[in-house]
Amino acid sequence: MSPTDPDPVLGAQHPIRLAARRINGHVNHTPLLECDLHRELRLKLECWQVSGSFKARGAFNALLSLDPPPHGVVTVSSGNHGQAVALAARTLSVAATVVIPEGANPYKVESIRGLGAEVVQSGVTFDNRMQVAQRVAHDRNLVMVHPYDDWDVIHGQGTVALEMLEQDPRIRTLVAPVGGGGLLSGTSLTARALDPEIKIVGVEPAGADDAARSLASGRHCRLTSAPATSADGLRSLSLGDRGFAVLVGAGGADAIVTVDEEQIGAATALAWTRLKLALEPSAALPLAAFSAGLLDRMPAPWGLILSGGNFDPAVVAGMLGLT
Amino acid sequence: MSPTDPDPVLGAQHPIRLAARRINGHVNHTPLLECDLHRELRLKLECWQVSGSFKARGAFNALLSLDPPPHGVVTVSSGNHGQAVALAARTLSVAATVVIPEGANPYKVESIRGLGAEVVQSGVTFDNRMQVAQRVAHDRNLVMVHPYDDWDVIHGQGTVALEMLEQDPRIRTLVAPVGGGGLLSGTSLTARALDPEIKIVGVEPAGADDAARSLASGRHCRLTSAPATSADGLRSLSLGDRGFAVLVGAGGADAIVTVDEEQIGAATALAWTRLKLALEPSAALPLAAFSAGLLDRMPAPWGLILSGGNFDPAVVAGMLGLT
Repeated sequence: MSPTDPDPVLGAQHPIRLAARRINGHVNHTPLLECDLHRELRLKLECWQVSGSFKARGAFNALLSLDPPPHGVVTVSSGNHGQAVALAARTLSVAATVVIPEGANPYKVESIRGLGAEVVQSGVTFDNRMQVAQRVAHDRNLVMVHPYDDWDVIHGQGTVALEMLEQDPRIRTLVAPVGGGGLLSGTSLTARALDPEIKIVGVEPAGADDAARSLASGRHCRLTSAPATSADGLRSLSLGDRGFAVLVGAGGADAIVTVDEEQIGAATALAWTRLKLALEPSAALPLAAFSAGLLDRMPAPWGLILSGGNFDPAVVAGMLGLT
Repeated sequence: MSPTDPDPVLGAQHPIRLAARRINGHVNHTPLLECDLHRELRLKLECWQVSGSFKARGAFNALLSLDPPPHGVVTVSSGNHGQAVALAARTLSVAATVVIPEGANPYKVESIRGLGAEVVQSGVTFDNRMQVAQRVAHDRNLVMVHPYDDWDVIHGQGTVALEMLEQDPRIRTLVAPVGGGGLLSGTSLTARALDPEIKIVGVEPAGADDAARSLASGRHCRLTSAPATSADGLRSLSLGDRGFAVLVGAGGADAIVTVDEEQIGAATALAWTRLKLALEPSAALPLAAFSAGLLDRMPAPWGLILSGGNFDPAVVAGMLGLT
């Protein structure tokens, strides 16, 4: 259904419907594909999204929602969100500053600079990065665009599921990677509004299982240190407050499953060699869950969000057995 | 248009129309995509074809055209055609034997064996492989399925262009890699029958430029030794007789351009990092021609056949700067 023909449930004024209308023209309507791994799989190719990941949806929605348009924005991310904010800011002629810890992957830093954003690295560590960003925001009168704990960002990410359920309304289970929870909570908000029977499954690295523990315990669990996982998009220490509220508090997640590093590497290699899709490891987690049989008890068809393709060649080379 | 609704030009009894009907259900109808490299590009994703390359089309058409069904088939190929024939034979319950030179990539040999084909390697070299295959065919009463110098194979490959021109009838130029010429001559036969104004461009490794020289001279040129190119699907020494007749004799090729190894490597890396498509180097040649500006003088939109995804990880790692 098109934005001008809203369904009666997720109405024209639902914030995710508004987000879809707002970002239309700035982001790609990515394909939903079948594949020969299993006839019940549906793959949403957000690796083909502008900026190389779904993060462009939330970034564009957040920047386009600011009224009046800001002098500039600041965010914290050495990865996909940083690239997405840089792209959205350049497109909308807004200045962007990205705070990145020293020692971050220089390839990603260059990519963010290449999109015209200013990078602040001096004296920035993984632990103090948010405080630095808040100070920069205050000192320079910039608006903070949080990578996941922001309703506009969450509503932007919810447009992935909106497209999927329009592309194949038969989908019964939606599966997304979970780090800070922006994508999974947006997915859940969309699905619950359209059809509460659709199952919502998050997939998390076993070494960063705070969301799984949060769902199991009902408490907002937090990792004590940065997790070591090849899925560099999923290293946040905990769900955001809004993600926790949606996924745990409001029952928006039906399951959060974990996969280990070997399974993540095998799923990434499977994507490259069998699907011919150059995914980044974080995007392969739903495939890893499928391969491990963790979706078997969920109703089919299964819609997997393959969230991005901004891979580090050295990491993927290892997964392909080359190093 | 569907097979039951033939256009008046390429009629229902045209051999490529018959091939499309014959292989329907056995091969994928692959997507034709736009991308953000250039708004006039259309990419045909034969890397998502069954067996990992377009070769499945010719192999299925050849095997399904044999009447009566043969006892078994034999072919010569350590690569995509070998995998395609093995898959088609297994599907159709026909025995397959594949003759492969000693020292061939063991990964590909295993893949062919994994599809149930018998592999003959003992005493086989690059130079004597065709003679060995002919002896095997004679001794065991097997039917030879040539990788490219066979009308049924060529007609099967022609279904790629048939789909493309149905998916976007605006395409004005079709671009394909050229080795033995099966894909390019099938492409040309389809396009010339539908609209003689459509330009046909082949792309060849500079180190294996026999087809370019053949088109320039009007003579059937042949390389004197196996060319050193990363495009391992394009190492044939010359066009097949049928390919030469179509492309040079009958004027079926408008241009054959060449790209060097650096351009092939850069195009493969571009596919992986920017398009998020895990192409094999042979399949990246049309992209290399685009990047080199060699399509600029051809009418747009340009339809590029990205012919396969059966990459050798070690080769691609080098192209990504990892070795």
